Amino acid sequence: MTEPQVWLDGHWLDAGAASWPAADRGALLGDGVFETLRWREGQVERLDRHMARLETACTALGLVCPIDQDQLAELAQEICERNTLADAALRLTVTAGIGPRGLDRDPRGKPSVLLSAAARTAPPSSIALKTSQIRRSPTSLAAAHKTLGYTDNLAARREARDAGAGMALLMDTGGYLSGADCANLFWMRSGTLFTPGLECAVLPGTARAAILDAVPVETGAFGREALTGAECVFVTNALMGAVPVSALDGKAVATGSGIPGSIWEVLD
Amino acid sequence: MTEPQVWLDGHWLDAGAASWPAADRGALLGDGVFETLRWREGQVERLDRHMARLETACTALGLVCPIDQDQLAELAQEICERNTLADAALRLTVTAGIGPRGLDRDPRGKPSVLLSAAARTAPPSSIALKTSQIRRSPTSLAAAHKTLGYTDNLAARREARDAGAGMALLMDTGGYLSGADCANLFWMRSGTLFTPGLECAVLPGTARAAILDAVPVETGAFGREALTGAECVFVTNALMGAVPVSALDGKAVATGSGIPGSIWEVLD
Repeated sequence: MTEPQVWLDGHWLDAGAASWPAADRGALLGDGVFETLRWREGQVERLDRHMARLETACTALGLVCPIDQDQLAELAQEICERNTLADAALRLTVTAGIGPRGLDRDPRGKPSVLLSAAARTAPPSSIALKTSQIRRSPTSLAAAHKTLGYTDNLAARREARDAGAGMALLMDTGGYLSGADCANLFWMRSGTLFTPGLECAVLPGTARAAILDAVPVETGAFGREALTGAECVFVTNALMGAVPVSALDGKAVATGSGIPGSIWEVLD
Repeated sequence: MTEPQVWLDGHWLDAGAASWPAADRGALLGDGVFETLRWREGQVERLDRHMARLETACTALGLVCPIDQDQLAELAQEICERNTLADAALRLTVTAGIGPRGLDRDPRGKPSVLLSAAARTAPPSSIALKTSQIRRSPTSLAAAHKTLGYTDNLAARREARDAGAGMALLMDTGGYLSGADCANLFWMRSGTLFTPGLECAVLPGTARAAILDAVPVETGAFGREALTGAECVFVTNALMGAVPVSALDGKAVATGSGIPGSIWEVLD
């Protein structure tokens, strides 16, 4: 099998040959953002939403977004062709580039852009969640944007794995439901669909946004007890789509009649 | 001038030739930790405290610390010799190394270690602080350890710079004083020295620890108003030592009789 190809700052490279300078601020300080995109049936799913989120995140971090939608669409097509991928997980990483020692950037610094691709693995048929000890700050940029500072999500995932679960559930520091470590959280109760509002340290997922635009959903600040009486709980992200939650902290979660058909219509 | 030398995973390299694989989890997800150390008069200052903190941070992130104190002492000496540095800022970076796509590490993954060095720049004679909009979560690993997920500190610093200040002051999500973006916070009031307790999302600085071990300090949860009546406010870190705070959010801060002599004795 040939080596996978990636695109790094204008060049196509074997994945194993692609590297960041040791002085890159992405590697040293988490100074950057990323997007995880799904390539499917010849295009990036919800590309416009990904681009809008990327631009928002770049702005929040004081970076000029170094790629536009047309360019990303072209690169996505080429990377899937080069790697012979039909259903793929793409990752676009934007770092602040090389900078001086310390927290302050060099204003002349130039962002670095990497696009990589891999065959998408099928999502699990259901997933068990474990509530993390880590609570997200609603004012944290690392919580509100898909930044390279994923440290807390990784730690929450490790906690979950150690407890035999597949994914972590995180609350915000106010004690309200926020979301899973790499996915947004939804639940159905008395026929109404709910999801935590962005004020609860929620990463604005593209699948979440598509659902909110298509079906009635109540957003707000909800305690963990909101899940107890739910008829159905599920998590969403760009790669998995929607996956039902089978258990929370070791207790089975009602599956009811399953994820509503309206959700499948939006995400499938 | 010759190119600076760095040490990366067992090899001495020109700094410009040192790089991380694009698949390194430090660069992709902030999956790693670092230490900033001062080399002075032939040794690393407070090396034992730095090593203890590094080991604690590695453990918190589920990493086996890939370097021990003797090895770090030797490497520190060699990097300063190779770069002809007498008073230097060293940075030791430990990443989780190459891993698969997604949040879960490959358990066989091997951490990557980089040591770099630069001439230490003299600290400013005083510094103006700006209170950040970002509040730290007391349960965040990125707040409690020196992880590569520095995203929020960087954002706070940018806010401060935009407001004409030199450094950001961060509160925790409970509304209590936490610390500066890359330094710990102390103040003197009615002759008593204070600093936020570790429960306030405080990074356990090595200079802070040295002060706590040497002089009486009250630690706890304090609101921002505690600074208003202070006779003296200062920030500390391993590279700067102690620097008086001259202003907070545009208002001059009393300098009183300056930083107490007992602090200089500890840090100088």
